[in-house]
Amino acid sequence: MLSLHDCQVIINKKLLELDLPAHPANLYDPIRYMLDLEAKRLRPSLVLMGCNVFSDEVQLAVYPALAIEVFHNFTLMHDDIMDQSAMRRKRPSVHAKWNQNVAILSGDAMLIKAYDLLSHTSASHMPQILDVFNQTALQVCEGQQYDMDYEESLTVSRDDYIRMVQYKTAVLLAASLKIGALLGGADESQSDCLYEFGKNIGIAFQLQDDLLDVFADPAVFGKVTGNDIVSNKKTILLIEALNLASGKNREVLLDWISRKQFNRNEKIRVIKSIYRELQLEEWVTGKVRYYHELAVDSLNYLQAEASRKSELLAFSDYLMNRKK
Amino acid sequence: MLSLHDCQVIINKKLLELDLPAHPANLYDPIRYMLDLEAKRLRPSLVLMGCNVFSDEVQLAVYPALAIEVFHNFTLMHDDIMDQSAMRRKRPSVHAKWNQNVAILSGDAMLIKAYDLLSHTSASHMPQILDVFNQTALQVCEGQQYDMDYEESLTVSRDDYIRMVQYKTAVLLAASLKIGALLGGADESQSDCLYEFGKNIGIAFQLQDDLLDVFADPAVFGKVTGNDIVSNKKTILLIEALNLASGKNREVLLDWISRKQFNRNEKIRVIKSIYRELQLEEWVTGKVRYYHELAVDSLNYLQAEASRKSELLAFSDYLMNRKK
Repeated sequence: MLSLHDCQVIINKKLLELDLPAHPANLYDPIRYMLDLEAKRLRPSLVLMGCNVFSDEVQLAVYPALAIEVFHNFTLMHDDIMDQSAMRRKRPSVHAKWNQNVAILSGDAMLIKAYDLLSHTSASHMPQILDVFNQTALQVCEGQQYDMDYEESLTVSRDDYIRMVQYKTAVLLAASLKIGALLGGADESQSDCLYEFGKNIGIAFQLQDDLLDVFADPAVFGKVTGNDIVSNKKTILLIEALNLASGKNREVLLDWISRKQFNRNEKIRVIKSIYRELQLEEWVTGKVRYYHELAVDSLNYLQAEASRKSELLAFSDYLMNRKK
Repeated sequence: MLSLHDCQVIINKKLLELDLPAHPANLYDPIRYMLDLEAKRLRPSLVLMGCNVFSDEVQLAVYPALAIEVFHNFTLMHDDIMDQSAMRRKRPSVHAKWNQNVAILSGDAMLIKAYDLLSHTSASHMPQILDVFNQTALQVCEGQQYDMDYEESLTVSRDDYIRMVQYKTAVLLAASLKIGALLGGADESQSDCLYEFGKNIGIAFQLQDDLLDVFADPAVFGKVTGNDIVSNKKTILLIEALNLASGKNREVLLDWISRKQFNRNEKIRVIKSIYRELQLEEWVTGKVRYYHELAVDSLNYLQAEASRKSELLAFSDYLMNRKK
């Protein structure tokens, strides 16, 4: 069974062989730039791993895996415009390096290129794979739209937040595994086990991400904490605080998120203390554990040798531990 | 054989049946809005007509036809952002009515929806149709990029311009006919006859469009002429004038296109007189005729009854005469 690292090596090698035209340079250079940025290739690796659970012929899954990675990078290119993020993976984002029109159009071409790569799927698998891909891609757009909608709202329910995270992040991990499984010969119900695994790990990961930004030890975490608090990002913590805080706490919270000018450390300290008072760290930690367990449980229904499941478990451990 | 009008009726009816989710409203409302704008449905009608040349079962081509129309409207939604056009078909464009982020993301969802509609193609036709669609969609992006690049350049060759027009406009008309033909049972060479017909009619149409903006009789044309001159749009006329004008004419031309403030009618008068002196109306008219004849000629290689070709000829007459 291939490890995550094995899969990453295969994907990076194949991405280098991707043959994109030289002209028009403003259309294709940004695609090359985006795909050259250092990245973990988690989603395409999951396609290969999903296939490898059921088959040793992982080469069947290489083009669909590349399609998923190119699709993912298309979403990043357009999200960076929408979120006005000037940086991506420690380098200027495409709209910052070129301009916004270039980022819109190169992103469009990238999405089409994803389908072009997907078209290398065998004819017998094509209808099913294309359907999973299309439904997932639409959900990813829905997730991004909900995310933008929620940024404008003070009342978001936890269910709404979980759905947003599920669509924006988790379903692509899930679909990557499912597509791989189908290509490896899994039936609908077996491939759905992997889908559930990917979906729940994705939700757990995103919730933990929200948690680490506030409560991680910066020395271990490797980066500055509190950025989400400073930018009023609608994490599960802020959403729950807005739902639960009352009286004086609510006043203080609303006051701090409305301030245009403030002392960064003071804002972090005050809001963190409200989160503590509401016991949000414990509550979100429980949610992370819940989704992580759901993910692991779904592997129990997988009819595959233990050795084939072990790499998936290693993957979930890697994902859940990488930032502690 | 179905007429253009018959096809338009079928497409408009099927578009009404398109089942888009209600939520998130900011993602799907703009798609509904865009598809509800009055439009001629030329491209999906060409899919049905292309099919109908070879088969009476045009229902085989309905979903791919809808895919082409949704794809076309996706390009319009994103082009309007890139070109900063606040109006589309006499109504506010999506980014003007909602905002830019909504237009980016709804456009993305629309492109995915196009593939979702295309996925209803029969499994046997899928690989070929998907390949034509992907290559065409990439060329449309390339055409838009060349168009934006050329707006920044004073030296564009006529070949470059023709390629730009071909990619940006003509190939989608061509691919619509080809996809229809393939679904109707045509082989590669027969479907390529229709592709050539669509491509060359598309180029002829675009060149004529450039011509009419300057030389049409406003009373017959139905709208104000000279807009392209006023906005310095890189039409075949301006490109050729920049390539051919020398001495005093070149000085005058460069002066007028660099002026920020000017009298509209005076600018039109001066530049039109340079176009006249360079005999550009005659030259471009010759080019229009050339591409129109190429289009009609390609139908000679079509192995179909004369009555099946007549609607295609009626379409080309309609397209070439609608603005005189």
